[in-house]
Amino acid sequence: MKTPGSRTIVLDAMGGDRAPEAPVAAAASLSRTTDLRILLVGDRSRIEPLLGRSAADPERIELVDATSAVAMDEDPRASLERTDSSIAVAVGILAKGEADALVSAGNTGATLLHVGRAVRRIPGIRRTALAAVHPTLPRPHNEDPFALLLDVGANLTCTPEDLLQFALMGSAYASRISKVTRPTVGLLNIGEEAGKGDECLRRAHELLRTAPGIHFAGNVEGRAVPLGVVDVVVCPGLLGNVVLKLLESQGEILEAFVRRTLSKRLDWRVGARLLQGAIDRITRSFDYASYGGAPILGFERIVIKAHGRSHPRALENAVKVAAKAVRDDVCGAIASAAAALEAR
Amino acid sequence: MKTPGSRTIVLDAMGGDRAPEAPVAAAASLSRTTDLRILLVGDRSRIEPLLGRSAADPERIELVDATSAVAMDEDPRASLERTDSSIAVAVGILAKGEADALVSAGNTGATLLHVGRAVRRIPGIRRTALAAVHPTLPRPHNEDPFALLLDVGANLTCTPEDLLQFALMGSAYASRISKVTRPTVGLLNIGEEAGKGDECLRRAHELLRTAPGIHFAGNVEGRAVPLGVVDVVVCPGLLGNVVLKLLESQGEILEAFVRRTLSKRLDWRVGARLLQGAIDRITRSFDYASYGGAPILGFERIVIKAHGRSHPRALENAVKVAAKAVRDDVCGAIASAAAALEAR
Repeated sequence: MKTPGSRTIVLDAMGGDRAPEAPVAAAASLSRTTDLRILLVGDRSRIEPLLGRSAADPERIELVDATSAVAMDEDPRASLERTDSSIAVAVGILAKGEADALVSAGNTGATLLHVGRAVRRIPGIRRTALAAVHPTLPRPHNEDPFALLLDVGANLTCTPEDLLQFALMGSAYASRISKVTRPTVGLLNIGEEAGKGDECLRRAHELLRTAPGIHFAGNVEGRAVPLGVVDVVVCPGLLGNVVLKLLESQGEILEAFVRRTLSKRLDWRVGARLLQGAIDRITRSFDYASYGGAPILGFERIVIKAHGRSHPRALENAVKVAAKAVRDDVCGAIASAAAALEAR
Repeated sequence: MKTPGSRTIVLDAMGGDRAPEAPVAAAASLSRTTDLRILLVGDRSRIEPLLGRSAADPERIELVDATSAVAMDEDPRASLERTDSSIAVAVGILAKGEADALVSAGNTGATLLHVGRAVRRIPGIRRTALAAVHPTLPRPHNEDPFALLLDVGANLTCTPEDLLQFALMGSAYASRISKVTRPTVGLLNIGEEAGKGDECLRRAHELLRTAPGIHFAGNVEGRAVPLGVVDVVVCPGLLGNVVLKLLESQGEILEAFVRRTLSKRLDWRVGARLLQGAIDRITRSFDYASYGGAPILGFERIVIKAHGRSHPRALENAVKVAAKAVRDDVCGAIASAAAALEAR
């Protein structure tokens, strides 16, 4: 059934706060607008009626039954026991090579563990990483308004060598997906000077500074992330996770401050009505749930973890990014870079 | 010269991007509006003319000459060599008990090192901490729109016991300065569940959960900081520093997004003119340079590190907060809590 040249993406239909409605709607839309083939994995009795009501192209969607699902707040380790969950079945399909990439908006820990158990790491890669794509202020050297932060939670703590590999994987991804020819890399630290940080960060700085193929811009501080000072920021997972969740809350904070302030005077309330479209647009710029999702890097197959609150449009974007990463051989690029590093 | 009941605050007149103008202006204003006595430490030849032009009350300001100053970007360790810098002289005055508290907007590392060398730690306190006061969304249980985050850079890494002491010091400060009777404490972590984090965080969670006198609300994620989910967030210094610098950049990011969006349509440009006052007010809410400053907790004397970009008003606030912390005996409260912890 796979047509030559087209890509097959397996989509966890039960993952995310809006499942199965959002994944099914995303698949239906993709079936009409792209040449991708979508394998929708989940509870057939819930998916079929939704698909039936949609205007999906049945040629491009295949339903794979999975009788259970991992809840968003379920213990990831416990979820490994069940082989009939949608993420377990979807990962199995990916591991067997029956799909080119996997997209899920479900439980992040469960996704990481299932993929980690079934899919091989790229030779030479020590630790896989969860990379977050986040919006930045416009940057002179890069038209893409997004930058990459990794690791954001797959590895709480890291060695200097892990951080070097995150830089390598992030650079490979950014150069393929964001089309920045020479993505710059920053090491998240307490200050910009070379000697800053604990021993791990100082050693990582040295490794990054001298590694071939990495365009290291030096240490960066917290503010560099939203400002987009570099294309790729590397850090241990605890730090990256806290930073990401803080960034994700910006829209909410902003909206609350704006609403509270504008309600204080009559002329401001009038002005606010004039600016409603602009205010919505600004708030949307900070809506992480609308972005394409976070790639999990270092496996031999592409895995995109979409935001748990993803709407159909965000899931569509995630699937498109996954297809692009397959087409542009992100995994191959990471493998080459890892091999070059090992050969040194 | 010290009148009974009045407080003496030593102010580093050469610290900060706007020194000596901002500290001198702050001292002049305080001399007219409070009963505080201010010791202004710095280059007499530069301070005297500024003081002369101000409407300062000479009875309340005393000038102490210091022939050099530590630059904002100077290596803190190297600055320890010089005993004639304004921060060295100011710390000396504090250590001798000739002032009740110290305020400086200068080099943070130099302030920490000078104070650490000359001023005793409170018995039982293992590591002193730099605490950041940051704005939050309005919170139902607390009228104060500020919360506390510590450590933000005095200790890159920490033990679980250090984190417990940070909680104790932050609680003592918040209950005195913010007037929250039972300040809640959160442990910054990768997730809210009790088992989250590395071994240090898991152990810290256990210590915090069972410590007397600490109102532990559990683990908190990155978004909890700006939302003000708890009154006091504790974390290792590297994490806190990155979070603080990210929070500090929010105003800049917001302003840039607002300006860019509002310029896109004529009616939005018109609306923006109507709302200029509101936009300024929102941006100001995120201006960290206008807040009172970051207390350095754990020493036997009160030290407030004001933001490097502090205007006179911010420095005035910092001095007032320092005086309030002296009056309400924050150091004594920390000492009692540390003693209670040791006695367990």
